[in-house]
Amino acid sequence: MSAIAVKEVKERVIADNDAVAKKVRENLMSKGVFLVNLMASPGAGKTTTLVRTINALKDKYRIGVMEADVDSVVDAETIEKTGAKVIQLHTGGSCHMDADMTMRGLEAMGYDDLDVVFLENVGNLVCPAEFDVGAAKRVMILSVPEGHDKPLKYPLMFSVSDCLLINKIDAAEVFDFDMEELRRIVDGLNADMPIYPISSLNGDGYDEWIDYLSNEIEIWKRGV
Amino acid sequence: MSAIAVKEVKERVIADNDAVAKKVRENLMSKGVFLVNLMASPGAGKTTTLVRTINALKDKYRIGVMEADVDSVVDAETIEKTGAKVIQLHTGGSCHMDADMTMRGLEAMGYDDLDVVFLENVGNLVCPAEFDVGAAKRVMILSVPEGHDKPLKYPLMFSVSDCLLINKIDAAEVFDFDMEELRRIVDGLNADMPIYPISSLNGDGYDEWIDYLSNEIEIWKRGV
Repeated sequence: MSAIAVKEVKERVIADNDAVAKKVRENLMSKGVFLVNLMASPGAGKTTTLVRTINALKDKYRIGVMEADVDSVVDAETIEKTGAKVIQLHTGGSCHMDADMTMRGLEAMGYDDLDVVFLENVGNLVCPAEFDVGAAKRVMILSVPEGHDKPLKYPLMFSVSDCLLINKIDAAEVFDFDMEELRRIVDGLNADMPIYPISSLNGDGYDEWIDYLSNEIEIWKRGV
Repeated sequence: MSAIAVKEVKERVIADNDAVAKKVRENLMSKGVFLVNLMASPGAGKTTTLVRTINALKDKYRIGVMEADVDSVVDAETIEKTGAKVIQLHTGGSCHMDADMTMRGLEAMGYDDLDVVFLENVGNLVCPAEFDVGAAKRVMILSVPEGHDKPLKYPLMFSVSDCLLINKIDAAEVFDFDMEELRRIVDGLNADMPIYPISSLNGDGYDEWIDYLSNEIEIWKRGV
């Protein structure tokens, strides 16, 4: 295995995150790079979902991944096996990525030769929701074992996301997860958000999710 | 169902959280009240664990629960059915509780008539680890679906905790969770921390966990 590049991107005091995010987004659009901000709890399956998603897209797009963690390089090593370009970002204890950290991560990785970049945010349903990083789309994952009541307790994350993946549906029989109740609660927070139940373990539901994502990438690229 | 008391405990700028935490702990010790700071990811089973733990202890101890959430009262309503005294704390968007918020929560609930208070912290493996709230013990829950690699990615939480519960062992067959590997990683961060595999769904492992907790409560009370 090759050595994983690691970049320290500790939080700086930036007066206006939204202004930096706007710059990041404009810059990415001018280069035709589609950035996904992927957010979820610890253990919801962000990395496994990325691996399967990259494998579904990599014949068509050149893909990069920024793995943001407080510590470790385990996720970056897993992603590297897909052949995607990967960099590990360490947040210096910070519980989220912001737009400035994202910009520095992009520059450290290099992105001129890429079509799609996934930012795997720190595992956390609170803080990452508060920071626009300049992504084209915010995608969140809720996993079946976490329970269908999570939108009631972490409403901002469900409100700001553009797409919701419900992962680990292969384990649905073991857990008391009510998909209809989940849809009802989410509808009250973010009525237009598409919801895709998936299993990143066995690929169930991936056709719909990959169709949605490919379509969004094409729309973005046409906007260039 | 009676109306749940809700207290807003938004974060204030407190120069020295550790000094406030020390005061909270001394105050609780002088009254013989044992405070547990319960921390975990969203959906790891904090509330279900609390319900079963309260039911195991309530004949012996007078119990109070502070449910800290960004929003909602669903957990407080669940806890109330155990007969424990309960208050819902709303953190005003904050991703963790600190010592000052804990003190205000205790005062709003009232705790002179209690032996044991559980603080169910905001579901988050990053921020709550950074704040001593003045508890007698910090207990964290990791659930089997989250995976055994989590201590590598959230090392501070595993380093500062006094006891680790591994919940949802009833679902172990569905997930690729390596308990020996988990123990090996935790050993490198916090060698003396006791680890109890439990199922808050069916009660497996509860004898050992309740023995540990009862023993710690008795040690604390003898110190009064």
